[in-house]
Amino acid sequence: MKDISLYRKEFLTYLESKLTHKEPKNLYEPMHYILKLGGKRLRPILVMMSAEAFGSTSHKALYAALAIEIFHNFSLVHDDIMDDAPLRRGKKTVHEKWDINTGILSGDAMLINAYQLFENYEGDQFKKLAKLFSKTAVEVCEGQQYDIDFETRDDVSLTEYLHMIKYKTAVLVGAALEMGAIVANANETCTQQINAYGCLLGIAFQLQDDYLDAFGDPETFGKQIGGDIIENKKTFLYLKTLEESSRAEAKQLEHLYSISPLNPQEKIETVKQLFIDSGAAHLAKAEIEKYTQKAFKVLEDMDISEAKKKPFKEFGELLMTRSV
Amino acid sequence: MKDISLYRKEFLTYLESKLTHKEPKNLYEPMHYILKLGGKRLRPILVMMSAEAFGSTSHKALYAALAIEIFHNFSLVHDDIMDDAPLRRGKKTVHEKWDINTGILSGDAMLINAYQLFENYEGDQFKKLAKLFSKTAVEVCEGQQYDIDFETRDDVSLTEYLHMIKYKTAVLVGAALEMGAIVANANETCTQQINAYGCLLGIAFQLQDDYLDAFGDPETFGKQIGGDIIENKKTFLYLKTLEESSRAEAKQLEHLYSISPLNPQEKIETVKQLFIDSGAAHLAKAEIEKYTQKAFKVLEDMDISEAKKKPFKEFGELLMTRSV
Repeated sequence: MKDISLYRKEFLTYLESKLTHKEPKNLYEPMHYILKLGGKRLRPILVMMSAEAFGSTSHKALYAALAIEIFHNFSLVHDDIMDDAPLRRGKKTVHEKWDINTGILSGDAMLINAYQLFENYEGDQFKKLAKLFSKTAVEVCEGQQYDIDFETRDDVSLTEYLHMIKYKTAVLVGAALEMGAIVANANETCTQQINAYGCLLGIAFQLQDDYLDAFGDPETFGKQIGGDIIENKKTFLYLKTLEESSRAEAKQLEHLYSISPLNPQEKIETVKQLFIDSGAAHLAKAEIEKYTQKAFKVLEDMDISEAKKKPFKEFGELLMTRSV
Repeated sequence: MKDISLYRKEFLTYLESKLTHKEPKNLYEPMHYILKLGGKRLRPILVMMSAEAFGSTSHKALYAALAIEIFHNFSLVHDDIMDDAPLRRGKKTVHEKWDINTGILSGDAMLINAYQLFENYEGDQFKKLAKLFSKTAVEVCEGQQYDIDFETRDDVSLTEYLHMIKYKTAVLVGAALEMGAIVANANETCTQQINAYGCLLGIAFQLQDDYLDAFGDPETFGKQIGGDIIENKKTFLYLKTLEESSRAEAKQLEHLYSISPLNPQEKIETVKQLFIDSGAAHLAKAEIEKYTQKAFKVLEDMDISEAKKKPFKEFGELLMTRSV
């Protein structure tokens, strides 16, 4: 696989060239601000890598790559308003730096700008990309709505949870890979399979994120360990523990998720112990492995050369070992 | 011209058929709520009328008509949040009935849904429609941003104001007519001319709205007379009065636009008198007439039969006499 940092560099050069001064500045400055805040740029890299693997160039994929990145950042701007989040990547969120109205309107314009980037592709390709983009974008909105709904529900099933993270996070990973394939004019079987691969990998990645949030290494995880527990987030670990543990332990967990102590350390430790004792921690690891293997199986079954599969496989392995 | 109510009826039947129950309901119910709130449905009617005038059917135009109506309602939902408006068409706004987060997210999904409706058109038509839609939608966002910016600026020029209302309101009227023409496969000269016609008419209509807000008949205008004055909105009348009146009168007007008396009747009367004495009221009427005539001139110059021009002309006349 071509070094990921090369794709990233090519993408960032293109991004920089697009962030020219535009009026009204209160609409465009927040866009440029969030787009320049950084991040790993995984989604655009996936578009570029996929296009190349299917025989096109990363250069031709740049428009679609930027569309995906702008969409992702649009969703961050609006989600941060909804979550009342003060910080994003260690810097002020858009609605904190400006105000909520600016966040709403700039976000809207970003969503439209993302569509406009597809205009760089001709006829059939344009329609395929825009259609896939819309379908995925609606799913992301639905995922976000389920996530909001789950906060106030106490009867969320694991199936519902998996559906939520699939829509909120994973479908965009799948769409990124499919867009690269569309740019390279890959056949429909391939575009759908590579989407499925990305989507399964996305679910595995999100489940791993849940797991590491409780059991990760504080040195390498990047976020505060126990963050989800502090926020009483009903993740896979929480839901699985309720399912697997005794009535008394379930009650204890539910109680702990109804309080927000000033010093959360004891709560975090108790909850983690419940996650372990119930077997949920172990089952979570098994679930991550299951989705990862499912993803690799889809890739394996694809009717393309091993050489073409290689970058996708390597990226998947890299993602699941969290070195990216 | 075919009776407008026939287009409206056809549109509403189609709209009703599209509002089927979907999950998650907290995402889709607010959409259905705002789309069923009513309104004159002028924009979708324009798409249908235009398609028919250019030789297609209103039926074929229904998807684009609904896209425009959904976009218009999306912008109402987000604008109402930004304006902190409690009511829309006499009913609770979406963010009042639900909450701000619901308003943001449902609005986002509406914008995406609007794009999806164009998928009903094939190849080239799809691209033309989506491209026009994106261009127009960005302009509407820019117009809204200018409108927000103008609230806190005291150096807004009339040129800037006209640019703002063109983007915020008029371009969507032009786009509605152009979409009908695209659906009917009209040639590019026609599509552009009919867009220009709608846009000029849209500006005239908005200027008339400004005028009637101060000088309209309370019986027929529909909104509260003096609403813009109460809200200190810098409309054409206000800006023109500042330009035309003496230093003392300008100062008086600026002072009146810095206060919000509990009983605004005296303020409204004084401001209206300033509008009249400065000549601004008269000049506003002249400006409305100028844009209306400009619009009709564009229509006149079009290289299509008089029979085809007729519905457009009649609609324009109807719009400017406010009987619709």
